[in-house]
Amino acid sequence: MSVSTGRVRMSPESRREQLLDLGARLLATRTLDEISIELLAEQAGVSRGLLYHYFGSLQEFHVAVVRRAVEDVYAITAPRDIEDPLEQLQVSLGAYLDYVSENYTGYVSLIRAAAGGHEELRRVYLDARRALTDRILDIAGAEQLAAIGVEDTPATRMLLDAWAAMVETAVVAWVDDPRDLSRDDLLSRLTHALPGVVTG
Amino acid sequence: MSVSTGRVRMSPESRREQLLDLGARLLATRTLDEISIELLAEQAGVSRGLLYHYFGSLQEFHVAVVRRAVEDVYAITAPRDIEDPLEQLQVSLGAYLDYVSENYTGYVSLIRAAAGGHEELRRVYLDARRALTDRILDIAGAEQLAAIGVEDTPATRMLLDAWAAMVETAVVAWVDDPRDLSRDDLLSRLTHALPGVVTG
Repeated sequence: MSVSTGRVRMSPESRREQLLDLGARLLATRTLDEISIELLAEQAGVSRGLLYHYFGSLQEFHVAVVRRAVEDVYAITAPRDIEDPLEQLQVSLGAYLDYVSENYTGYVSLIRAAAGGHEELRRVYLDARRALTDRILDIAGAEQLAAIGVEDTPATRMLLDAWAAMVETAVVAWVDDPRDLSRDDLLSRLTHALPGVVTG
Repeated sequence: MSVSTGRVRMSPESRREQLLDLGARLLATRTLDEISIELLAEQAGVSRGLLYHYFGSLQEFHVAVVRRAVEDVYAITAPRDIEDPLEQLQVSLGAYLDYVSENYTGYVSLIRAAAGGHEELRRVYLDARRALTDRILDIAGAEQLAAIGVEDTPATRMLLDAWAAMVETAVVAWVDDPRDLSRDDLLSRLTHALPGVVTG
């Protein structure tokens, strides 16, 4: 799919979406800071003015790219009709790991930007992590949670978020250097650590 | 202990140490960015010139303050002759939690600065986290590790580091708002999550 569709007439919304798709794809090999308006204009075959028209500023463009990236992560880790919640979780974690693996440069730059001073990126990132962990509870459902002694409380959600921080740290480190750990072993450990954290 | 010791003659090393002590103490109520050379000069009753003489630049001063802060964390979480490694770990985590609680503003600013763009702070921070988790393995000792099926491998150390990221995220969130979770319950969950992560 080329963004520089030339003569094809597109709505502003579609065009903006395509530009964001391109921005998010550039994260595969570039840090967020490296994705400038100039680079995007060149890659998309559009003017810098048009990009400023769509996104306002470089910072707003970066926020939009990160928002798109986290939407991508949310989509690719969606549940796939697997009945056992932990099995489902492990499959979703695998999809997350593959995303990090394929977008390592950009993903690492994104989490650093989010963790650092940039408040809006931080908010987008934390909201995304929260949405991912909320979905885990939703998938498990009240009945299954009760069966393993988990109550859906603010404390449970806080602990799940901390578990997600462990997952991210481990996955980023593993993609950088897997040491002597297989992909399945890593995913299994991270998955099975969760019930212990939330049930106490 | 006042840093402005007036007429008392001190070695440059002692004076530098005292200034760093003061800087680290200021983290209790101030972010790293708020701890300027001007503020420290005022609080210590010394000239700004003297501070630049000791630390070179504001950035170097901040790195030195963070180094001191993580040394403090390392010291207060030191093992206390408790035989059971998990019990020992839980006591150490409690000391860490108390440090975060007493230095919340500064500690949060420190981890954000370390996670963000500032490479030297990042290095100091990651080295400190690594030293803390290395000590956990050292305390447990090869024999006890073997008893629970843990081998001291690069993968184990990587997973321990990820577990430490979970601990930090949970402790910072808990200090900010404990929800319905008691201190002991939090510490116990974090402690007991560790064997599962490293043994698989």
